[in-house]
Amino acid sequence: MSTVALAGGIGAARFLEGLAKVIPPEKLFIIGNTGDDTEIYGLHISPDLDTVVYTLAGLANPTHGWGIADDTFGCLGSLGKLGAETWFQLGDRDLATHIFRTERLRSGTKLSTVTSEISARLGVRCTIRPMSDDRVRTIVRTPDGNLPFQTYFVRRRARDKVLGVTFDGASKARPAPGLLQEIRRASGIIFCPSNPIISVGPILAVPGVRKALELRRCPAVAISPIVGGRALKGPAADMMAGLKLDVSARGVAKIYEGLVDVFVIDREDADLAPSIEELGMKVLVMNTIMSGMAEKKALARAVVRAIQKHSAVA
Amino acid sequence: MSTVALAGGIGAARFLEGLAKVIPPEKLFIIGNTGDDTEIYGLHISPDLDTVVYTLAGLANPTHGWGIADDTFGCLGSLGKLGAETWFQLGDRDLATHIFRTERLRSGTKLSTVTSEISARLGVRCTIRPMSDDRVRTIVRTPDGNLPFQTYFVRRRARDKVLGVTFDGASKARPAPGLLQEIRRASGIIFCPSNPIISVGPILAVPGVRKALELRRCPAVAISPIVGGRALKGPAADMMAGLKLDVSARGVAKIYEGLVDVFVIDREDADLAPSIEELGMKVLVMNTIMSGMAEKKALARAVVRAIQKHSAVA
Repeated sequence: MSTVALAGGIGAARFLEGLAKVIPPEKLFIIGNTGDDTEIYGLHISPDLDTVVYTLAGLANPTHGWGIADDTFGCLGSLGKLGAETWFQLGDRDLATHIFRTERLRSGTKLSTVTSEISARLGVRCTIRPMSDDRVRTIVRTPDGNLPFQTYFVRRRARDKVLGVTFDGASKARPAPGLLQEIRRASGIIFCPSNPIISVGPILAVPGVRKALELRRCPAVAISPIVGGRALKGPAADMMAGLKLDVSARGVAKIYEGLVDVFVIDREDADLAPSIEELGMKVLVMNTIMSGMAEKKALARAVVRAIQKHSAVA
Repeated sequence: MSTVALAGGIGAARFLEGLAKVIPPEKLFIIGNTGDDTEIYGLHISPDLDTVVYTLAGLANPTHGWGIADDTFGCLGSLGKLGAETWFQLGDRDLATHIFRTERLRSGTKLSTVTSEISARLGVRCTIRPMSDDRVRTIVRTPDGNLPFQTYFVRRRARDKVLGVTFDGASKARPAPGLLQEIRRASGIIFCPSNPIISVGPILAVPGVRKALELRRCPAVAISPIVGGRALKGPAADMMAGLKLDVSARGVAKIYEGLVDVFVIDREDADLAPSIEELGMKVLVMNTIMSGMAEKKALARAVVRAIQKHSAVA
């Protein structure tokens, strides 16, 4: 019996860092978003998977959240001198992951296998599983046309108005090995504090995943990534606004309607509790700002307790 | 009217560094060996081309001769942690070249074009042209079986007895664009002080190259890479011994019989001059040990003068 967590990038990674200290990491099965994967210089980059792996391995850059702490940028600098585009910041140590992954993928290994290899070799004891071994790409529709997610987010700094979001390839993607089974036999499901549109959205778009979550036999708890109408990290608020969604914890809860039993919101948003309960969820109000390890563990402990409590009730 | 130089790796690069200061670099057309090219982590590595480019760009590591000065090894170290083999020393800045080249090749660009792009962007004004855009791989036959060149040379440190050398793919390789024309209209041809078996050998094995050199209309000068029965750099002496060749400047001259008009040997080998002249070559005896830039330029000047003198005679 595992705890299954749906995860995007930095926000999820920070929460999972606490969770892996609160429950045995071997019992933690993380489903990672690959919708923002990209190819740069012919290398396969999985930004969200890597952020989760690096964070759980204790290697993450504490300032940015992405990349590896104290990494150097010798290769990127030299690529620039050769005339290559260098808008995607790839550190030398980080590059090793992409080179390793790309070579393994080219030799026919599945992304889920490579991700397990990388995790294990970096000392991570949880399972981190991409949502699918098949290619899914998040595409952001803007007034300037359809942009691949990293082009929208990194290259153009999330400045374009978001008119829509699609997940190219999702309808034909198969869930990664073991993924639906883990959801079915989970003792708890957690929606990490990630962007519901472009981090959790692609996971839910993989055929079979939403259904398995709807049919869950265990409590599902979500943590709002929106606090006081602002995203803790990344472009969630602007995206939700562009999509004419309610940019609030309640707006996130609405997206997860039918999938979640307990919704965790920050004290700042306590007044939203009644309107979220109307969606058929219990609401847990607490501090959700993870400024340090103590806060990460406290939030994780509260989520684990909510799962236990809800299991007992059900 | 260009000077055409046939080049291997480090020995050639050192000589060419002097030559490019003695004649206008725009008039220098260098034919590089790609027999020791290899794929590592799915990246296309061209060690000899890179050594020549880096040296002429003033970027080469002055201690090793290969790689880039003051390079870091963050990526390689991290690849090791991921369980990848790390016997081939790839620095972070050096990696940029391989990543750039591999991406360009995968997009359908020819190696000769990519090599020109890399050279130009690093500020090299000579032309550096791979011997062929087609795949040629030097294979070393040893008591332990056939080894790809870099496995023999780097991984196993050239410790295996050499029973034979073949150039896989050479018989079907086409000379790189412009290569035969440059040989035909050259004002001088230089065989750099490179390993005659595995550096110049692959170039001569590309169909049409040997013939074009035999039919040359200008003087050809070779500099012996063997001095006092020892290779200045690399495994030339052991290889020649394994192949039952005469490990001496005369042994090298013998390999180049019919291709070379003037053979440059070191003072230490002065006594070999008569036996080399018997092969139908003029012999130039001078200091060939390039300990610094002054020696490199002196050697280059002597070679250029030999070409001029021989042209006048012919």
